[in-house]
Amino acid sequence: MTRADYVIGVDGGGTHARARLCDGHGAVLGEGQGGPGNIRLGQAVAWANVNAAIDEALGAAGLSRDVLRRTSIALGLAGIVEEDDGPAMLAAGPDFLRAVAVSDGEIACLGAWGGGDGAILITGTGSAAYAIVNGIGRPMFGWGFQVDDKGSAAALGRAAIKWALEARDGLIDDTDFTRAVRDRIGGRPSAMVGWITAARPRDFGGLAPMVIEAARAEDAAACAIIARAAHDIARMIDRLVEVGAVRVCLMGGMAAHIGPWLPASVRSRLEAPQGDALAGAILLSRRLAAPNVQDADGEYHVARG
Amino acid sequence: MTRADYVIGVDGGGTHARARLCDGHGAVLGEGQGGPGNIRLGQAVAWANVNAAIDEALGAAGLSRDVLRRTSIALGLAGIVEEDDGPAMLAAGPDFLRAVAVSDGEIACLGAWGGGDGAILITGTGSAAYAIVNGIGRPMFGWGFQVDDKGSAAALGRAAIKWALEARDGLIDDTDFTRAVRDRIGGRPSAMVGWITAARPRDFGGLAPMVIEAARAEDAAACAIIARAAHDIARMIDRLVEVGAVRVCLMGGMAAHIGPWLPASVRSRLEAPQGDALAGAILLSRRLAAPNVQDADGEYHVARG
Repeated sequence: MTRADYVIGVDGGGTHARARLCDGHGAVLGEGQGGPGNIRLGQAVAWANVNAAIDEALGAAGLSRDVLRRTSIALGLAGIVEEDDGPAMLAAGPDFLRAVAVSDGEIACLGAWGGGDGAILITGTGSAAYAIVNGIGRPMFGWGFQVDDKGSAAALGRAAIKWALEARDGLIDDTDFTRAVRDRIGGRPSAMVGWITAARPRDFGGLAPMVIEAARAEDAAACAIIARAAHDIARMIDRLVEVGAVRVCLMGGMAAHIGPWLPASVRSRLEAPQGDALAGAILLSRRLAAPNVQDADGEYHVARG
Repeated sequence: MTRADYVIGVDGGGTHARARLCDGHGAVLGEGQGGPGNIRLGQAVAWANVNAAIDEALGAAGLSRDVLRRTSIALGLAGIVEEDDGPAMLAAGPDFLRAVAVSDGEIACLGAWGGGDGAILITGTGSAAYAIVNGIGRPMFGWGFQVDDKGSAAALGRAAIKWALEARDGLIDDTDFTRAVRDRIGGRPSAMVGWITAARPRDFGGLAPMVIEAARAEDAAACAIIARAAHDIARMIDRLVEVGAVRVCLMGGMAAHIGPWLPASVRSRLEAPQGDALAGAILLSRRLAAPNVQDADGEYHVARG
């Protein structure tokens, strides 16, 4: 089988897509960035943004799109949920020598543990996990804001509003924090209803810093909300260990804030990641680039049960 | 002050608006129905639907719109949250001799207790409460699906999906019910994510019958979900009593299903309502029709704190 001359890795999240171009030996030739790569925006939009990132990387290396037919690419894209999603996305894109599209969680996990076994739990605006056990990948949690996103910034913000409104209705005690949350979303009933009705996960997530700050000031409601998020994170970490993850890393913007609230027994299981998601995409792309070369870590498969 | 020759009451909910036309003595002359009267659809839409209901009632009585200037009207409309909302809605409508617009919860409470003191807790697709204590009205709870709607059909359905997904991820035990819920929303991960992303409160509420049926069959997960909803309903009823409600009624499509799960001490506080929301609107409109006649129940005010 032909060995690819070039290797591209793409990390396509909900906010932007990043691409890294390497030669066949892994030396970085160029990098680029584009808009969101989430396939839920539609394949055309996702490809436009991914292509923009690729073109920028090619430009930085002084190369044209002609080389893509000699290139191996691995795309890690938000919104890829099932095995069908990756091939469908690839069919809508340019021709490469070899290509694979997996979830952004999968390349993050590959990057974190250098392609070996382990799990990641990401808590940013939302939350999700990915575990690789005996070389088999498995996405977990992360079903979306309406029913999940436990331990995320959006969950913290939503809980803050719930508590603030329960306090207003007298179901629980009011605190400086619950009053401040009501003021933040408009204070008057109609303003609050309007805010809540229009709010997206990132809007709820925008209240997370208030919760963190109030918890530092030992506000009872804010402490209870973070403690609950930490409890949820701990449950998920325990479950990742239970399914066989030999090491777990807590990533994302909320990790540093919720980490200190975790029980010591859970915290002690956490390790720092070895690399980022783009490193994971490059790793996957390099394996694809030379498929007849036996990888020291063994083969990597994805199972979705 | 001129006494109104006609009295109209309107109950404008999220699904449809109903109007009842009476003569000055309270005899029903006609009724009519239109589309949703929720002011969040915009004043133009709400008025179009309310006017359709009024026109049908006038037609049934053989009357034309000319009589509206001699008519007293009380509108109880979904989406009215603050004191400003009612006058703003009225300013956008036809000219009446006298008019008032209040929330649909307020007329439901007036109808339930014949204008006297008491509270109602409505649990249908969503949930909300209204209390009248010493003649002062007070809306409570009901902040919307994203952060509240405790004890409602939508809350039951959302909880069912949360449990079903936690069971799939191994955080809790799977049951026949949690498996059936996953099948109901598509079974495959991408189908479930798609369902959840697109789901509105009524879609979540559509799963409530599954929860109720599974709880009857003593499924552990379904029982826990309904027990939680009943706990939330009980907390709200306790709070209504705490703020001084002398009697409470549990209304709406979910009342009969959740009622049996309430503690006996809470159930014993519940009474059957005396009349419906349209009766409440007519009552309010009749008071307005002859404002110089002292009402035996005393004056009725609305306070929103």
